[in-house]
Amino acid sequence: MNKGKLRIIPLGGLDQIGMNITAFEFNNDIIVVDCGLAFPEDDMLGIDLVIPDTTYIEDNIDRVRGLVITHGHEDHIGAIPYALQKFSTPIYATKLTMALIEGKLEEHGMIAETERRVVVAGETVKLGQLEVEFIRTNHSIGDACALAITSPAGTVVHTGDFKVDYTPVFGDPIDLTRFAELGRRGVLALMCDSTNAEREGFTNSERTVGRALDAIFADHGDSRILVATFSSNVDRVQQIINAAERYGRKVVLEGRSMVNIIKTAIDIGYVKIPEGILIDISQIKDYPDNKTVIITTGSQGESMAALSRIATNMHRMVTIKPGDVVVFSSNPIPGNEKAVFKVINELSLKGAEVIFQDTHVSGHACREEIKLIYTLTKPKFSIPVHGEHRHLMAQRSLAISVGVPKENVFILSNGQVLEIDGDGASVTGDVQCGAVFVDGLGVGDVGNVVLRDRQRLAEDGIVIVCMSLEPGTNIVVSGPMVMSRGFVYIKESDEFMEEAREVVLSALERIQDRNITSRNKIKDNIKDALSSFIWKRIKRSPMILPIIMENNEE
Amino acid sequence: MNKGKLRIIPLGGLDQIGMNITAFEFNNDIIVVDCGLAFPEDDMLGIDLVIPDTTYIEDNIDRVRGLVITHGHEDHIGAIPYALQKFSTPIYATKLTMALIEGKLEEHGMIAETERRVVVAGETVKLGQLEVEFIRTNHSIGDACALAITSPAGTVVHTGDFKVDYTPVFGDPIDLTRFAELGRRGVLALMCDSTNAEREGFTNSERTVGRALDAIFADHGDSRILVATFSSNVDRVQQIINAAERYGRKVVLEGRSMVNIIKTAIDIGYVKIPEGILIDISQIKDYPDNKTVIITTGSQGESMAALSRIATNMHRMVTIKPGDVVVFSSNPIPGNEKAVFKVINELSLKGAEVIFQDTHVSGHACREEIKLIYTLTKPKFSIPVHGEHRHLMAQRSLAISVGVPKENVFILSNGQVLEIDGDGASVTGDVQCGAVFVDGLGVGDVGNVVLRDRQRLAEDGIVIVCMSLEPGTNIVVSGPMVMSRGFVYIKESDEFMEEAREVVLSALERIQDRNITSRNKIKDNIKDALSSFIWKRIKRSPMILPIIMENNEE
Repeated sequence: MNKGKLRIIPLGGLDQIGMNITAFEFNNDIIVVDCGLAFPEDDMLGIDLVIPDTTYIEDNIDRVRGLVITHGHEDHIGAIPYALQKFSTPIYATKLTMALIEGKLEEHGMIAETERRVVVAGETVKLGQLEVEFIRTNHSIGDACALAITSPAGTVVHTGDFKVDYTPVFGDPIDLTRFAELGRRGVLALMCDSTNAEREGFTNSERTVGRALDAIFADHGDSRILVATFSSNVDRVQQIINAAERYGRKVVLEGRSMVNIIKTAIDIGYVKIPEGILIDISQIKDYPDNKTVIITTGSQGESMAALSRIATNMHRMVTIKPGDVVVFSSNPIPGNEKAVFKVINELSLKGAEVIFQDTHVSGHACREEIKLIYTLTKPKFSIPVHGEHRHLMAQRSLAISVGVPKENVFILSNGQVLEIDGDGASVTGDVQCGAVFVDGLGVGDVGNVVLRDRQRLAEDGIVIVCMSLEPGTNIVVSGPMVMSRGFVYIKESDEFMEEAREVVLSALERIQDRNITSRNKIKDNIKDALSSFIWKRIKRSPMILPIIMENNEE
Repeated sequence: MNKGKLRIIPLGGLDQIGMNITAFEFNNDIIVVDCGLAFPEDDMLGIDLVIPDTTYIEDNIDRVRGLVITHGHEDHIGAIPYALQKFSTPIYATKLTMALIEGKLEEHGMIAETERRVVVAGETVKLGQLEVEFIRTNHSIGDACALAITSPAGTVVHTGDFKVDYTPVFGDPIDLTRFAELGRRGVLALMCDSTNAEREGFTNSERTVGRALDAIFADHGDSRILVATFSSNVDRVQQIINAAERYGRKVVLEGRSMVNIIKTAIDIGYVKIPEGILIDISQIKDYPDNKTVIITTGSQGESMAALSRIATNMHRMVTIKPGDVVVFSSNPIPGNEKAVFKVINELSLKGAEVIFQDTHVSGHACREEIKLIYTLTKPKFSIPVHGEHRHLMAQRSLAISVGVPKENVFILSNGQVLEIDGDGASVTGDVQCGAVFVDGLGVGDVGNVVLRDRQRLAEDGIVIVCMSLEPGTNIVVSGPMVMSRGFVYIKESDEFMEEAREVVLSALERIQDRNITSRNKIKDNIKDALSSFIWKRIKRSPMILPIIMENNEE
C-alpha cells in the first residue's frame, strides 16, 4: 500500500537560536509551522534582525495550505510580516498568539489582507491531506501549543517550545493525557524542544516565582521596587501585579513592548488587573516610594530598553536613588551576560540593591520532562528540534536512553528533506534556505561583502586617497589627498598622514616612470604602497580606498 | 603623635575586570602593587589590549621604591612592559610570577635593563618606610601571594587574588596562621578579593578536578582526549598530565601560550613531567588515538586559539573525528559564553563528545572563605578590591556581617586617594588614571573619536562624495563621485547610488545659486542633503565624508 511519504523540511531553527520555521509536506499539501526571526550575531555588524529565506515556500505557494503557529515568541512569529510580503496564506494560532501576530501585522499595515483563524487547544484543523491538532502545553508565554500533525503516512508530534507545569499561573497544565492517547494510537515521529536537554531534572513551576516575589516584597516594605522581566511573559507580569496588590502598591508598566504586549493580554482577558492598580508613569511622583512597583523591559541589558535608560540616568521620569530595589526576574540569555552585568553595576553604583536569585524559571523542559514526553508518545522516530547542535545531540542521547533505536534519531540540518512513513525515514535531498538580513528598511540588501567591509572598518578604519588625473594620462592635476576615518590619526596635518602622502607621491612617480595609465593598475599600486607602509610602521591594516577622478567634459 | 598617614590609591582594577594596579604611599615612599592589563570591551573596536594610565607614577617616579606583584595572571602583570617603558623601578615577585614577567620583558627586549628580585612566601622586603611581607595563598596559578604592607600608620593586608585550598595540587595551603598572627598584632585595613563575593559557601579544592579527570579518562578508554584549559593554570595542566600517565597516554601541549607557560613552569620545577610522556604534535600520528591527550588553549572560545582552529578544521595537524572527547576544564568568563558555545557546537557537529561539567573550580574565594579572612585578620577598615561594583558591594555586606562598622567600609573608585591611619580614614582627593588603548604597535594613539568613528562605520558603513572645484569658486571641474564601503549597495552603478549622485548634484546647484564658496559650508550642505536622502529612503545613517579638492598649482 503506497500512501506516499510525509516530507519534513526544517527551513530554519536548527543549530541556531531563533528563526524557527518548518515545512510539512504530503503530496499536494504543504503546511508551514512557525515563522520566527533571529537576533543578529556579534559579527553581523549593523544588522537589526535576521529572518529566514522562504524561497522554497514561495516557489511552492500553490500547494501551501496555511501557516500554523505554536506560540507568540519572536523566534516563532517575528518573521511573519516579512514572509507574508513574499507569499500569502492563512494563519492558524491560539488567541494570545494571534493577538500578538495581529499587533505585528498592524504595524506593517497588513492586517486587512491577511486571513486569520483563531483556534483553541484541543481543536483540529484540516489542511488538505494534513490534519493539525493543537495540544495545550506550558511555556513562558500563555497559550502555547504542541501540534499533532497527521497525514496518511502517520502522526508527527511537534512539541513547540514547552515545559511541564502542573501548577501554572494562568490556564491549565499541559495536556499530558492527549500525549498519552496519541502514543497509544501510534506516533510516527516526535519533534521535541531541545533547549534544556543538557539540564538535569525538572524545570520549576512558574508559581515558585510568585513565592520568591512575595518574599522580596515582604522584606523591602520601605523601598521602591523595580522588576525587570520579559514583556512576553504575561504570567510573570501577572504574578508581579498580584504581589503588588497584596502589598498595597500601585503598578507602572514601562517600556514599549511591555506596554504593548500586556495591553494586548489585558484586552483578551489573559491578564487580570485589580481595579485602580495600574497608574501611568507620570503619576508615580504622586505616590510614596514604598507604594509603587515599576515593571519594566530591559532584563537582558538591551541598551535602548527602559531599565538601561533608568540605570544610566537617561530616563525622562525615573531616576535610581539609594534604597531602590531592582529585581531581575529573568536569566541572561547566552551572549547577553556582559550587558546585563553592566546594567547591574550601574544600578549598584547609584545605590540600588539588585536581586537576581530565585526570581526566574525557564520556559523549557529539562531532561526528566523530555523523557516523560518520549515515554508518553512512544515515537518510532525522533527528530530533535529547537536548539544549537549540542542541545540536539543531548536530546539524541535522551531519546536513545528511553528506547528509540539509535538509527531512528535524525539530527537534521536546515534545508534537509526528511521523507518518512511507517516503513522508514531518510534524508532525500535539500532545498534552499538560509538567513536574510534586515537592516533599517532594507530586507536582504546587506550581504556578506558589506558585512566583511564593516568588520574591516570596525577593526582598523579606512584610509582614503583621492586625486584627479588628466584624462587618459597619469598626470596628477589635483591631490593626492589622504584622509582617514576610524583609523589612528585624526588630522590630515598629523605627521604620519603627511608621510603617507609622501608614500603615495613616490608611488605616483614610479607609476609615471613606468608609463602606467590604467586606472585600476594605478589604484592597485597606490594601495600596495600605502598598505605596506602602514603595516611596517604601526602593524595595522585599515581598508585603503584610492579614488581617481578625471575632469568633467565641458 | 603624628606619624603621617598611609595613602592608598587604586589606579585601576575597581569597577572593572582586569587592569589591577594600586599605589601605596607613605611620606616619601611609594610602592606599586601589580600592573595588569584588561581585555577590550565589545565596543572598543579594533583595540588589542587596554592598559592603565600610569601618569601619576611617572610624575612621582623619584619616590617610587618598587613594583610588587601578587601573582602571574595577565590582569596583574600584563601591563608591566608598557609601564616600564614610561618609568623604571625594580620588580619584586615570587619565582613563577617572575619567570612569567621575564618572558614578557624578553619579548619586548627589556630584560637587561629591568632590575628584578625574586622573593619567597614568608619573606619581607623593606622599601623605604614601607615593609612588604609576602604571604602564601592559593589561586588558579601557582606562587600567588597576599601582601602585608606595613607603614608607621599601620598594616594593610592585600589578599591579591586568592582562594582557600586545604589540599592544593602543588605547594602548601594558604598560610592562614600568618593571617591570624597579623590579626592578633592588629590590621589597619583589609583589601580583599571580591570576585566571588556573591557566591555562597566554599570554592572546591583544585584536587577535586583531578578526580573528575580520572573518571573521564576511565570512561573513555577508546577515544582520543582533548582538554582545553587556561594555560596559566599550571596545576590543572599537571593534573591532566598525571591522569594521562595513569592511563598510559602521551601528552601534546598545543597553543602558543600553553607551550610557553608550561615550558617556563617545567624549567623552574613547578610542573613535573614523567619521563618520555611529552611528545610533539607532529608525532601524534604515530600513536593510536586512545594513547594520546592534547592539552590545548582556547577554552574561552578565542577565535585564533588552537581549539577554535581545531574545531573549524583550520589546524595544520589535528582534525576532529567522531568519537573524540573534548573536555572544557574551564568556565566561560562572562562575555565569552557565545564564543565558547560556538566552538562546542562546531566540535559536536564533527562528532566529538564535549564534556564541560565538574572539570573546573574557581580560583577565587567564595563567601565563607572571605568571612574566614576577615575573622582572622580583624581589620579596622575594609576596602573591597578586585571586581565589578556589584562584587565590591557584596563584599561590603559580608564585611559588615562579620563586624566591620558600616562607616569603616570604603568602596573606592579608581584614582581616589584614601588617607588612612589608626585614627580614621577618608578620601582626600583624586589623581589622574584611566584606560590607555593598545592597537597594533600603537599605545594610546587610538582615542574616543576614533572609536566612535569605528562604531559608526561598523553600523552603517561610509559614503564618500569626492569632487574637484575650481580654486576659490564653487565650479565643479571633476566629479562628484559617490562611493561607499560597508554601506548597503556595493556598486557605483547601483540605481540607489546614481540617485545619491543626483541628490549631490542638486545640492551643488543650490550652492551655486546661493554663491556659497566656503569649502566647509559646501561640505556641510552636501552632507545634509545626502544624509536626509538616505535616511528618508532606507532609514540608515552611514558616515558621510565629502572630499573637495582643488587643482594643484603648476
